[in-house]
Amino acid sequence: MSRERDFITRLSAFATHPAARGLKDDAAVLSLGERDIVLTHDMIVEGVHFLPGDPPQDVAWKLVAVNLSDLAAKGAKPLGVLLGFPLGDADWDAAFADGLEVVLNAFDVPLLGGDTVSGIGPRHLGLTAIGETLPGMAPARGGAKPGDTLYATGRIGAAGLGLAVAKGERADADDWLAAYRRPIPRLAEGQALAPLVHAMADISDGLLIDAQRMAQASGIGIAIDLDTVPIAGDRMAAVTAGDDYELLFAGPADLTLTPDLAPVTAIGRCSEGSGLTLFDRGVPVSLPSALGYEHNKA
Amino acid sequence: MSRERDFITRLSAFATHPAARGLKDDAAVLSLGERDIVLTHDMIVEGVHFLPGDPPQDVAWKLVAVNLSDLAAKGAKPLGVLLGFPLGDADWDAAFADGLEVVLNAFDVPLLGGDTVSGIGPRHLGLTAIGETLPGMAPARGGAKPGDTLYATGRIGAAGLGLAVAKGERADADDWLAAYRRPIPRLAEGQALAPLVHAMADISDGLLIDAQRMAQASGIGIAIDLDTVPIAGDRMAAVTAGDDYELLFAGPADLTLTPDLAPVTAIGRCSEGSGLTLFDRGVPVSLPSALGYEHNKA
Repeated sequence: MSRERDFITRLSAFATHPAARGLKDDAAVLSLGERDIVLTHDMIVEGVHFLPGDPPQDVAWKLVAVNLSDLAAKGAKPLGVLLGFPLGDADWDAAFADGLEVVLNAFDVPLLGGDTVSGIGPRHLGLTAIGETLPGMAPARGGAKPGDTLYATGRIGAAGLGLAVAKGERADADDWLAAYRRPIPRLAEGQALAPLVHAMADISDGLLIDAQRMAQASGIGIAIDLDTVPIAGDRMAAVTAGDDYELLFAGPADLTLTPDLAPVTAIGRCSEGSGLTLFDRGVPVSLPSALGYEHNKA
Repeated sequence: MSRERDFITRLSAFATHPAARGLKDDAAVLSLGERDIVLTHDMIVEGVHFLPGDPPQDVAWKLVAVNLSDLAAKGAKPLGVLLGFPLGDADWDAAFADGLEVVLNAFDVPLLGGDTVSGIGPRHLGLTAIGETLPGMAPARGGAKPGDTLYATGRIGAAGLGLAVAKGERADADDWLAAYRRPIPRLAEGQALAPLVHAMADISDGLLIDAQRMAQASGIGIAIDLDTVPIAGDRMAAVTAGDDYELLFAGPADLTLTPDLAPVTAIGRCSEGSGLTLFDRGVPVSLPSALGYEHNKA
């Protein structure tokens, strides 16, 4: 069992408020009568979530995007963000501030506050994003039902290719690097889908691991037809790579979005039972040893 | 000019949403019609805000207390917290979780969510606290008016003495160590005072520096009568030491609280003009070279 899972299990013992959703979702949903407030806090760490050489402007983009992606998965409209920032090199910090302004403008989200501290060692950056939905409208990770169709937005794997480009392991198209460094949270898609779906999460750690978590949280089995998944690059690498920030959701058959939004593809189905199973043109495929990115696997 | 001030000045250029309050307050106040949501995010860093040898349970207490203190200064009732936690040593992390449960129970505040990451190097812990007030009820740091009386709750300087005990620089009473390691946010006092005061902030970096910031944010002058300030230990050390988390506020003369709450003492007055001036039994006293704790002074 991973250290992360141990720690979250320990916290879950006292995180019993309904807004915490058993710590199974990536965001908290606080019911305030005429609206629900959606709250998420993600940290990114230098050397873990971004490379020391990544441009600070892109690090700012990523910090905001990963948090807005959690709001997107709840169908929430962003209300603002708080920044937790360890001060370090003045030039780096100034470039980060420039990038923060750019990304917040891009998604029309206000900076509301936060904290600056004296940082020591690798940068640990934190962001809290606050959003709102109509009451009861935020889908849970654990709401998928037997008979549901499983869907994903967009294309899977581009960020993984971009990471390889960033590491100098391959020289490739700029749009892959952009997918890794400047992911686009699916805010409009999430808001359009929230009233229609039974369960939704973003694909942050890898399609397979995020699908397995949805199966587990929902108490059902999920089967993915690998041949139907829109991918970039090698298939098994794509479905186990993280950082794409597409949406994974379960709901009735024949869900579509308007043409101005990201394409939606049916990639599998939900059934009684448990766990994740894979198929390729109807033929069962073994699960790879690693389904995606796991924090602090022991 | 400090690096912190440079960075916040840069952020202020685009943090123009009214809820951000020009980044002059320690918390954001988001108006949502029938209530205001108060949001604060504070980080604490190992080696900066706590000592590597501090018990993890006390670190958890402090992380929660410093954030709840920001809610207290807005008169907000806490609704919950989100934790940003870098995983490290399993025993330390388990003890931290134990301490988190204790402090959240002590103040009846639910854990709503957050994030765990792989930490590297000194621990950077983040917490977001969410609270609520009636509409328009959260006092600003910058609302003090000429003619107002300046007040503080409790006693100043105990945490500074406790820090010296924790560093082994003096052997002294246990309650000083407790004041440093387990400060009590003045939540009930803040809620009682909010409707009565014109400006309020918590004393986190030192009485003198926090009073100077209130004068600056309010566009007024503040005079403190040092002989009236309830202190622990040496006077000038007490009024420049941080971490006490008492409330500093300005309002009409003769403010008092009910006897079940912390004592409130008039310690000075507000006037036209600018800056901070000090008196001892009516005689002007020079400002010390350092008014309190400043982050990253260049």
